[in-house]
Amino acid sequence: MESFNLDNVLVRLRSALERDDIAGATAILEGLRPADQADIFSELEDHEQVTLLPELDLSDSADILEKMDDQDAAELVAMLAPEAAVSIIDKMEPDEAADLLGDLSPAQAEAVLAAMDDPEEVRPLLVHADDSAGGLMTSEVLAMRCKMTAREALQTIRQWKPEAEEVYYLFVVDRNGVLNGVVSLRQLVIAPPDARLEEIMEREVISVRTGTDQEECARLMSRYDLLALPVVDAAGKLLGMVTVDDIVDVLVDEATEDIHRLGGAQPFDRPYLDMPVLSIFRKRAGWLLLLFVTESLTGSVLRHFEEELQTVVALTFFVPLLIGTGGNAGTQTTSTLIRALATGEIDLQDALRALWHELRIGLMLGVAMAAIAYARSLTWGSSQALALTVSLSIFAIVVWANGMGSLLPILATRLKIDPAVVSGPVMSTLVDATGLFIYFTIARLILRI
Amino acid sequence: MESFNLDNVLVRLRSALERDDIAGATAILEGLRPADQADIFSELEDHEQVTLLPELDLSDSADILEKMDDQDAAELVAMLAPEAAVSIIDKMEPDEAADLLGDLSPAQAEAVLAAMDDPEEVRPLLVHADDSAGGLMTSEVLAMRCKMTAREALQTIRQWKPEAEEVYYLFVVDRNGVLNGVVSLRQLVIAPPDARLEEIMEREVISVRTGTDQEECARLMSRYDLLALPVVDAAGKLLGMVTVDDIVDVLVDEATEDIHRLGGAQPFDRPYLDMPVLSIFRKRAGWLLLLFVTESLTGSVLRHFEEELQTVVALTFFVPLLIGTGGNAGTQTTSTLIRALATGEIDLQDALRALWHELRIGLMLGVAMAAIAYARSLTWGSSQALALTVSLSIFAIVVWANGMGSLLPILATRLKIDPAVVSGPVMSTLVDATGLFIYFTIARLILRI
Repeated sequence: MESFNLDNVLVRLRSALERDDIAGATAILEGLRPADQADIFSELEDHEQVTLLPELDLSDSADILEKMDDQDAAELVAMLAPEAAVSIIDKMEPDEAADLLGDLSPAQAEAVLAAMDDPEEVRPLLVHADDSAGGLMTSEVLAMRCKMTAREALQTIRQWKPEAEEVYYLFVVDRNGVLNGVVSLRQLVIAPPDARLEEIMEREVISVRTGTDQEECARLMSRYDLLALPVVDAAGKLLGMVTVDDIVDVLVDEATEDIHRLGGAQPFDRPYLDMPVLSIFRKRAGWLLLLFVTESLTGSVLRHFEEELQTVVALTFFVPLLIGTGGNAGTQTTSTLIRALATGEIDLQDALRALWHELRIGLMLGVAMAAIAYARSLTWGSSQALALTVSLSIFAIVVWANGMGSLLPILATRLKIDPAVVSGPVMSTLVDATGLFIYFTIARLILRI
Repeated sequence: MESFNLDNVLVRLRSALERDDIAGATAILEGLRPADQADIFSELEDHEQVTLLPELDLSDSADILEKMDDQDAAELVAMLAPEAAVSIIDKMEPDEAADLLGDLSPAQAEAVLAAMDDPEEVRPLLVHADDSAGGLMTSEVLAMRCKMTAREALQTIRQWKPEAEEVYYLFVVDRNGVLNGVVSLRQLVIAPPDARLEEIMEREVISVRTGTDQEECARLMSRYDLLALPVVDAAGKLLGMVTVDDIVDVLVDEATEDIHRLGGAQPFDRPYLDMPVLSIFRKRAGWLLLLFVTESLTGSVLRHFEEELQTVVALTFFVPLLIGTGGNAGTQTTSTLIRALATGEIDLQDALRALWHELRIGLMLGVAMAAIAYARSLTWGSSQALALTVSLSIFAIVVWANGMGSLLPILATRLKIDPAVVSGPVMSTLVDATGLFIYFTIARLILRI
């Protein structure tokens, strides 16, 4: 694809709107792909969006709402005339419509549902958490009975003409709607026309329950290379399916969340530049404040050793070096462990192996850093005793940081807390106070102060 | 899916192998899905792997090699008898086979290619970098001519019986093999049987060149909800396609890489527990050492202000608090920016907007932290002047850290360096030295020392 410039499109669209050329404006938008339409659309002013959306082809309007950020879409729908809103939402994929309704006020959502053509496709989806299989699934699935032949199944698909591109699997169910097997569209096409679905279907279907977390769905789909994952109830009845395009979004969002947490801030719920400055402030201020209070402890440790500091001022020079290195070693460990836990490379059963891994790495890094710190202290003109103090301290601090950095994410997982809260800043702050304590204790022993 | 326990399967497999019951062992493995087969297989000893792999069904062996870590697979292949290796590799998907050959020694790879049934399917893939569209693509694509009817196309698919599940798109090419359009298998099934492909195909196909980076492919496929992305040469000739299951892996791997970098370490190339301790040591020691050297600067700043420190020892108590908070604010900013750059939420054109965003957030956070630091200093019994020094310093340091935290990732991107190298540890270390300089300068002015 030639990467064309959306900015030019926006300029043309704006000038059409300024001329009140609605037909021209809709023509410009309708020539684009849904993701591009939504991007361009988000750049327009509220009143322009409200004017333009009902003028577009219904399926284009539905695509735009699906692709916009959840909150932006809800705000736009709240501004539309009720009938216009309902007819667009009717055209949306049921799972996307349910997400949108969930972001409206309960009264608005109820009004939309009451006016929809087929509210029963959407209503059951409303009860599920957004980040569960139930919240992610679409209820538009191809489900057929096992006695049907491949020819009949293809015939049914032809008559039904499913709109969604996401039809790659045909689910086979019994008379009670219980999931029995799966046939890919490819298998259906290449099967002998008279073969019954039960003869060609794969019986060992991987399925999830409505409550399954979206990360677990993503893990299953990526591990087993699935394009769609059926969702069933306790009795095994087919309720819907999660499709791979939703999972791609989940993977990107979950990684973003982890990276924000690892940076020591609450994750965002909108793209960066759309987040108002005040919201970002709130997402960061809490952690920054909490860490400030914890870091006060480090100051208290220093005050506790005031006498030693006055006797040997040179001890001070090494403080940033020691606590900095400890924080860095801890951050290296914790980010590795958090990612390994998130991708499922390790789980709680591997806790001891991971600790043993990190302990050995910590010992090796500790020895290396101790040697370098010893040399550095001497070149700074420190006494042999001080150099020994510094190098022993850095050894102990690095080993301690690696231990904490591996233990804390595992402990958090055990306590069902997102391990990513053990962020780099949290690690550095924790290691600062404890690291200084280690340092001055060793200094007391060696320097006899 | 009942989450069954792979450990039990491993125990049964081991006991079959101990009884020399090869048939039993292969039966156990062949009942599993490829990803599980590969997991179990990786737990076996080398000699067990070498015995078992050639006994399995060829397509199972091929699946296992595809799902194993690249290096493990290459090591295993190198140990197999040449004929056994060739017949398994012949069964692999061309893109996976090419990756595997790339990890063998050139002599081994050449020997395998010479003995393969269809080396020309694999050979062209060898020249592309693993992380480009060319390295990721499979050359097994359905390509048909535009005058063909839907019925004929379905007929051709039935005869060809493509093995891969990944057949959801049919690419339409002209006589020179130039990509003209795309038809989904769903469209083909529901189209009137006599419709020509050129009548039903989508003409505006998104395609990439062989050299396109895998992150760009992932971005396109997730943005436009594509299941396969055609790869073409300069003349537009269809060479292959990248499928969504590869892109799911790319997304996971790229996020892992960024998180490792953000933690201040070189990314791993194998799962965590498979990485030897010495390799992890090497991946971390470099950064830790570099940061240690930089952190020495912080010590030098302290030495430079030795006189002030001796006059007002209480200045020392606030050192960890100030540089810690600066490092935390910088890490919050840098992780946000790095992720926004990675997901394409912002690009270089948005640099000024992002800087302005962070500047305002920095001012707000700075004021908040200054107020709290002022109160904290007084409760620690500091003089008014010292409290003022500390709170002015923390304000300046937070604003400075936010500025650096947004500027550096953007600068790195501009210089075509992965912005994730501006990790939390790098930010903390940079802010430590500069932060202390700010602190002592303000102290000199206010305390007149």
